[in-house]
Amino acid sequence: MADYSISELNKVVRGPKRAIYDINTINEILDDTFLCHVGYVFKGQAIVIPTAYGRKEDKIYIHGSLKNRMMLNLLDVGEASLSVTHLDGLVLARSAFHHSANYRSVNVFGEVRKVENPKEKMDALACILNHMVSGHWDNVRQPNEKEFNATLVLELSIKTASAKVRAEGVVDEAEDYKLPIWAGVVPLRQIANNAISDDNLQEGVKEPKEVLDYINQNR
Amino acid sequence: MADYSISELNKVVRGPKRAIYDINTINEILDDTFLCHVGYVFKGQAIVIPTAYGRKEDKIYIHGSLKNRMMLNLLDVGEASLSVTHLDGLVLARSAFHHSANYRSVNVFGEVRKVENPKEKMDALACILNHMVSGHWDNVRQPNEKEFNATLVLELSIKTASAKVRAEGVVDEAEDYKLPIWAGVVPLRQIANNAISDDNLQEGVKEPKEVLDYINQNR
Repeated sequence: MADYSISELNKVVRGPKRAIYDINTINEILDDTFLCHVGYVFKGQAIVIPTAYGRKEDKIYIHGSLKNRMMLNLLDVGEASLSVTHLDGLVLARSAFHHSANYRSVNVFGEVRKVENPKEKMDALACILNHMVSGHWDNVRQPNEKEFNATLVLELSIKTASAKVRAEGVVDEAEDYKLPIWAGVVPLRQIANNAISDDNLQEGVKEPKEVLDYINQNR
Repeated sequence: MADYSISELNKVVRGPKRAIYDINTINEILDDTFLCHVGYVFKGQAIVIPTAYGRKEDKIYIHGSLKNRMMLNLLDVGEASLSVTHLDGLVLARSAFHHSANYRSVNVFGEVRKVENPKEKMDALACILNHMVSGHWDNVRQPNEKEFNATLVLELSIKTASAKVRAEGVVDEAEDYKLPIWAGVVPLRQIANNAISDDNLQEGVKEPKEVLDYINQNR
């Protein structure tokens, strides 16, 4: 697949050698979690809100209540950007200056519209839930009319995006390698523990395969 | 300790029953990671950037290169806001509508200034590194004049802040409890694995206690 075009918005200015514009790589980073941080402008100031999302092709879906200030603002502006970050390790160098982190992060920029067509809206809700636990939408009770109407769904069409990835060991100044100072990487990752079933399940009801798969893939 | 005052900026509008303005609770959430997402306005649009930070009392410190666009913008505006989010679990309800996440998130708003006094600046750099691995600053080679001068350090004085915390089980509609659908919480957490020492350490150099403590506390 191709790259996103580079504009003033998505160009990685600091640390350009870590910059990635490749669409496949960006999609992999986006698909590896369901939590993003969305920015919006409120009275001239940028406010950052964490929220769940789903991705399908070049569309990102987020949802919330009809009165969600962040979402209404994005709709009003017609554009949005969001950040997704995975923290993969501490990079502990011999020098304070070369301390860093291993990470994969993406910034996405795009146009925002409200999803109003009922089929599209239901598909977007399924996309968001399945982005959390793949295939779990079909296991649960789907939205009734009241719930469906009480949910605002926005679609962000990705216009451009960029990723920054650091995935390497310590890089120290040449003369520091002779110092008797320890250096190395401490790997970090997000894991899932076994599910804690709700106390009031009907008799004999067990975790569906999709939930067990999620836990096994994130142990 | 007291609460932060509630203004239009930090007031939790959606899900107000999960809102916390208590300074101690907010500080605990801030101290439990070193990665925040900072928002800034670039040509009218909010851009969100992940970055490391340290906290001391009501000050947050971030650092970067002298040409860091995000930091120069914050300095220009004189104000900043940032978000810190811990993802603690998937809340998988019987209904799609009641799916949620357990999390602890904080939004901080404050005034920004450049830290120029050399002692204050060195203390801020130590604060950021020790916020990553407590006490590790004293183990490493501290910045020389060239590195020190090449680093821009900003101090955000917290004017106000708010936290949102969800830490509970599934809450479903009363009539859904009779459905033969599984529900429960999948706990999530970030863990550290054993350190991977750099290949070129001097003979006999081992991980310092502070790094081993970090790993043990995050297993």
